[in-house]
Amino acid sequence: MENFSYCTPTRYIFGHDAESHAGEMSSQMLGEKVLIVYGKGSVVRSGLLDRVKHSLDNSSVGWVELGGIEPNPVDAPVYEGINICRDNHVTGILAVGGGSAIDTAKAIAAGVPYDGDFWDFWAGRATLEKALPVGVVLTIPAAGSEGSGNSVITRIDGMRKISLRTDKTLRPLFALMNPELTFTLPPYQTACGIADMMAHIMERYFSPTTGVEITDRVSEGVLTAIMEEAPKVMAQPDNYDARANIMWSGTLAHNGICGTGRKEDWVSHAMEHEISAVYGVTHGAGLAVVFPAWLTFMAARRPAKIAQFAHRVMQVAATGDDLADAVLGIDRLRVFFRSLGLPVTMKELGVGNPDIDLLVNKLHENKGETLGGYMTLSRKETTEIYRLMC
Amino acid sequence: MENFSYCTPTRYIFGHDAESHAGEMSSQMLGEKVLIVYGKGSVVRSGLLDRVKHSLDNSSVGWVELGGIEPNPVDAPVYEGINICRDNHVTGILAVGGGSAIDTAKAIAAGVPYDGDFWDFWAGRATLEKALPVGVVLTIPAAGSEGSGNSVITRIDGMRKISLRTDKTLRPLFALMNPELTFTLPPYQTACGIADMMAHIMERYFSPTTGVEITDRVSEGVLTAIMEEAPKVMAQPDNYDARANIMWSGTLAHNGICGTGRKEDWVSHAMEHEISAVYGVTHGAGLAVVFPAWLTFMAARRPAKIAQFAHRVMQVAATGDDLADAVLGIDRLRVFFRSLGLPVTMKELGVGNPDIDLLVNKLHENKGETLGGYMTLSRKETTEIYRLMC
Repeated sequence: MENFSYCTPTRYIFGHDAESHAGEMSSQMLGEKVLIVYGKGSVVRSGLLDRVKHSLDNSSVGWVELGGIEPNPVDAPVYEGINICRDNHVTGILAVGGGSAIDTAKAIAAGVPYDGDFWDFWAGRATLEKALPVGVVLTIPAAGSEGSGNSVITRIDGMRKISLRTDKTLRPLFALMNPELTFTLPPYQTACGIADMMAHIMERYFSPTTGVEITDRVSEGVLTAIMEEAPKVMAQPDNYDARANIMWSGTLAHNGICGTGRKEDWVSHAMEHEISAVYGVTHGAGLAVVFPAWLTFMAARRPAKIAQFAHRVMQVAATGDDLADAVLGIDRLRVFFRSLGLPVTMKELGVGNPDIDLLVNKLHENKGETLGGYMTLSRKETTEIYRLMC
Repeated sequence: MENFSYCTPTRYIFGHDAESHAGEMSSQMLGEKVLIVYGKGSVVRSGLLDRVKHSLDNSSVGWVELGGIEPNPVDAPVYEGINICRDNHVTGILAVGGGSAIDTAKAIAAGVPYDGDFWDFWAGRATLEKALPVGVVLTIPAAGSEGSGNSVITRIDGMRKISLRTDKTLRPLFALMNPELTFTLPPYQTACGIADMMAHIMERYFSPTTGVEITDRVSEGVLTAIMEEAPKVMAQPDNYDARANIMWSGTLAHNGICGTGRKEDWVSHAMEHEISAVYGVTHGAGLAVVFPAWLTFMAARRPAKIAQFAHRVMQVAATGDDLADAVLGIDRLRVFFRSLGLPVTMKELGVGNPDIDLLVNKLHENKGETLGGYMTLSRKETTEIYRLMC
């Protein structure tokens, strides 16, 4: 087991009417004036945004707002949000939505107290040390950003999609999580969220570190729970308990508990970020394509951990042949993703003829000539993994 | 799934030399002068206490000390510690040891800013709202107090052993966890710690709440990891990875992650507290006696969840007969406890002829005429469970 330092200070308020605590929690933790950051569509249509504003009003918390955040969030609204905050003396940011709203809120929070360009932190030119406090009303279980210290933003100039990972600075101080708010998610978005949270666990699980049985078992438990509850939410979108299990799983998948004590991988996310940046696909759908390909590549080279995954999560009976068991486990993962209506090839993703050279070039420009934790990869290997997606 | 509010703000620094951060973390989080609270024996003999003091000196953190805390900690040293803190303007408490030192440290932390008797909080006569900050250097994985908001203290007058549970106020701000510090634990103490952490999970797992698959799976994962690593630490006390897995499991068992979204039980702990208070036995050993008896009583009445435990944790093949599967699972739990050298009957615990009437009377005096979450119990049922231990 590797040494680690771990802290998850987020207060999770989970259950029916959780969003009704928005005013009280903002008053305690975000200060006297918040910027509400949200997307469009359902948050507005459902009346949720109005309920949140009402809750803020009732707690005498002032607010300004920034709506219209798109999936795969870009830098332009971040600059807009920073200006709004400075002009209005905003003391904290309240995201209402999923990962895109939350990651934008975090980037604004990082930028407000910084004299330079917020992108310096994402580009690795400066180290983030302080940020405005962030709170969340979660509507999409997927990105896990409600409990993580991370934020993924795309630079429009050059379409660079970069994840900034912080230990603590960008972790939300609170997350209000009402599973009922997810009843109306479209099936495809529900499925993409499930693939995203599973990927967050697998990026940590497929590690070169041995002797981390406790973290393996917790990770396998969360993966198993997700796979058991996923068919229920697809079949019955208003099944409260199933939605609640999926929602809480999405947080545990990415708040770090599945990574304690080991090196992590994150190659699949990096490879998917390039696909999203170039082709604009949904992140979770891209991951459903990338992960089976990455696993297939690794099974031929480092099968033991993938066989363990097959045995413990995919219910493959151990035959003594790790490679065969691993391959069967990966097949079952593909079958599972397909059962949710997700793509598992580039073609199914709508990218019939991907420009693999472009993807590989962008990947290594952003991540360096070698990357990966489970196994170190250079251009030759990443090219092969992209080809395995076709 | 039940609504919940959950926050674990403790910073865990885990791994080799973790204790070397004592000065730096105390300086950041406990203020300029700490009270070091510890037991006796190994913390002093091993040189750990001196290393901690040296680390505090190096960070210019002043200190006073209170040593000699005994297992099943009582109220007298709490009063002494409160006086030392007040006389010396102490700003925070640093526990060095296991649950007894930590729980005493928490009680002192609660008492210092309170004008009345600290016991008011444990007796339910006052609500704890503020306390001095607490930090921990952990040497015994068992009680989980390094990550919990709880503290168990015994009132000498009347031998009342009471657990105060707080959501956040008594959670340590940091816990320094070096698995090497546990290499020299005597085998019996290691085994008692394992029983204690397993009990912390099972008290939460055996719940009347349904639809909490994610919390079930996480709990089953932690239990499984403990049972896999336990034989290794018994056979090889200096196996770093095995000790590390057990140590981190002990924290996850009791920091609340195994309880999210459901009602908990805690009858077994309450029944054991009376045995400890009357007969002075080690808490973990008492739990190894209580839990199989409690499960046996429940298997005949509410077998489904115990059968699930048998299938998923004890590797019992499902036969379709929940009661039979549950009974076999409980047998395997007894076999496991015995394999660690733990008692599973009152006689093996060294209490040949327990005064069951006395235990039942004290239990219900402390906990009320009915208690329990998995099933509500009155004197008739608790008497029967105590009898099943004989």
